[in-house]
Amino acid sequence: MHILVTNDDGINAPGLLALAQEMRRIGNVSVLAPDSNWSASGHVKTMHRPLRVKEVSLADGSPAWTSDGAPSDCVALGLLGFIPEKINLVVSGINPNANIGHDVTYSGTVTAAMEAAISGVSGIAFSLHSPGDFQGLLDFSTAARIAHRIVSKAITEGKLSNLLLNINIPYLPEYDIKGILITRQGLRVYRDRLDKRQDPRGKPYYWIGGEAPTAIPDEGTDFGALEQGYVSITPLHLDLTDFHAVTSLREINW
Amino acid sequence: MHILVTNDDGINAPGLLALAQEMRRIGNVSVLAPDSNWSASGHVKTMHRPLRVKEVSLADGSPAWTSDGAPSDCVALGLLGFIPEKINLVVSGINPNANIGHDVTYSGTVTAAMEAAISGVSGIAFSLHSPGDFQGLLDFSTAARIAHRIVSKAITEGKLSNLLLNINIPYLPEYDIKGILITRQGLRVYRDRLDKRQDPRGKPYYWIGGEAPTAIPDEGTDFGALEQGYVSITPLHLDLTDFHAVTSLREINW
Repeated sequence: MHILVTNDDGINAPGLLALAQEMRRIGNVSVLAPDSNWSASGHVKTMHRPLRVKEVSLADGSPAWTSDGAPSDCVALGLLGFIPEKINLVVSGINPNANIGHDVTYSGTVTAAMEAAISGVSGIAFSLHSPGDFQGLLDFSTAARIAHRIVSKAITEGKLSNLLLNINIPYLPEYDIKGILITRQGLRVYRDRLDKRQDPRGKPYYWIGGEAPTAIPDEGTDFGALEQGYVSITPLHLDLTDFHAVTSLREINW
Repeated sequence: MHILVTNDDGINAPGLLALAQEMRRIGNVSVLAPDSNWSASGHVKTMHRPLRVKEVSLADGSPAWTSDGAPSDCVALGLLGFIPEKINLVVSGINPNANIGHDVTYSGTVTAAMEAAISGVSGIAFSLHSPGDFQGLLDFSTAARIAHRIVSKAITEGKLSNLLLNINIPYLPEYDIKGILITRQGLRVYRDRLDKRQDPRGKPYYWIGGEAPTAIPDEGTDFGALEQGYVSITPLHLDLTDFHAVTSLREINW
């Protein structure tokens, strides 16, 4: 079992270290993560410039690699041969904020797992549903232990092939987490606002700002599970076809 | 009818101009596109830095806006108020290469349309299935006329709400195009290879290279339609839940 660990927050993020440490209890681990933050960066394939890779140490002294590419580039590098061993699983995270609803198309954490799936390797994205106004240092240890439990279970159940999972974990003490639910992708409610400002030379610039997104806690969804204190596992696939619309659009004589 | 036109190849791309000109025959058009090429850039929401917008002219002298953001940022800027008028439709393209199969998760052209859909505005991505080895200047006029025909038809049929379409057009003379098919997303076959090189200082760097991707021309798919000489319209949605896997994973006692 060889596991590639990456993230979108960058090589020094505490969520990456916590995840890597728990994955080492399951198999051999290679860490290859971006050298900077790629949050909301989407699914990138860097082809217009070459990528650099540098050897570094994580905070626990273990060896890791960092690249100037996106999370999905790190996965591509690893799977295309930078890591000579065969990779059986790519895990990404632990992201400090939930990735629910439409977030999955923006999220660097999730797109790293997608990149694995496109190459036929199972990919799992882990995110922590931390309180939006949290100011201190997040504790990733519970989430990391749950990641360990889920990956171990998937292995013993023989389910670790062609998996693409988006997993969100409530920010609760372990004994307050009610269990694990298999969910569907819910609906995010973005509250972006455009903030127009003037630079010191009087020229305008624009921030995409606004309040943090909310979501609709429908029963059976990612956000619904989190709000009730459950870990949410949403299996994803990369077929975005809207089959209802296929039927309705075929009625038109184009 | 107010149409926002964008792309991922940048404001000077001939496919953008051809699309904008045909959309002007349908309604008011605003053009807001990236100032550089964002191919394979994925679904980006730029929040770590502000965005600049500059007024420019297209090659036909018409006014346009260009931003240093991604295609999806251009759409967000437009819909969040940079363009004061209500936008009814976002069109993106015309991309000089097909966006089929898994391309939809990487493609800046498609993610611009996704960004519209997330805001409740119809989004349509247009791409030209040009020959891979084409060296000369592509002719976008046929594809642009087909874009005009499809958008007009969607309007007269009352279908222009909540649409998210990925449209690919064969690179053929208009009379050789056999018609328009509503398709499902097919399977891309990527043939990426990692190319390790040494810089003049003896340090390694890596290109994600390899041959152009191919695809499986299954009946009913995007690529299948193109290969038979049809325009492919694939309706997409943003729910990536794999419902088959939901059922199978619920059998496990997590």
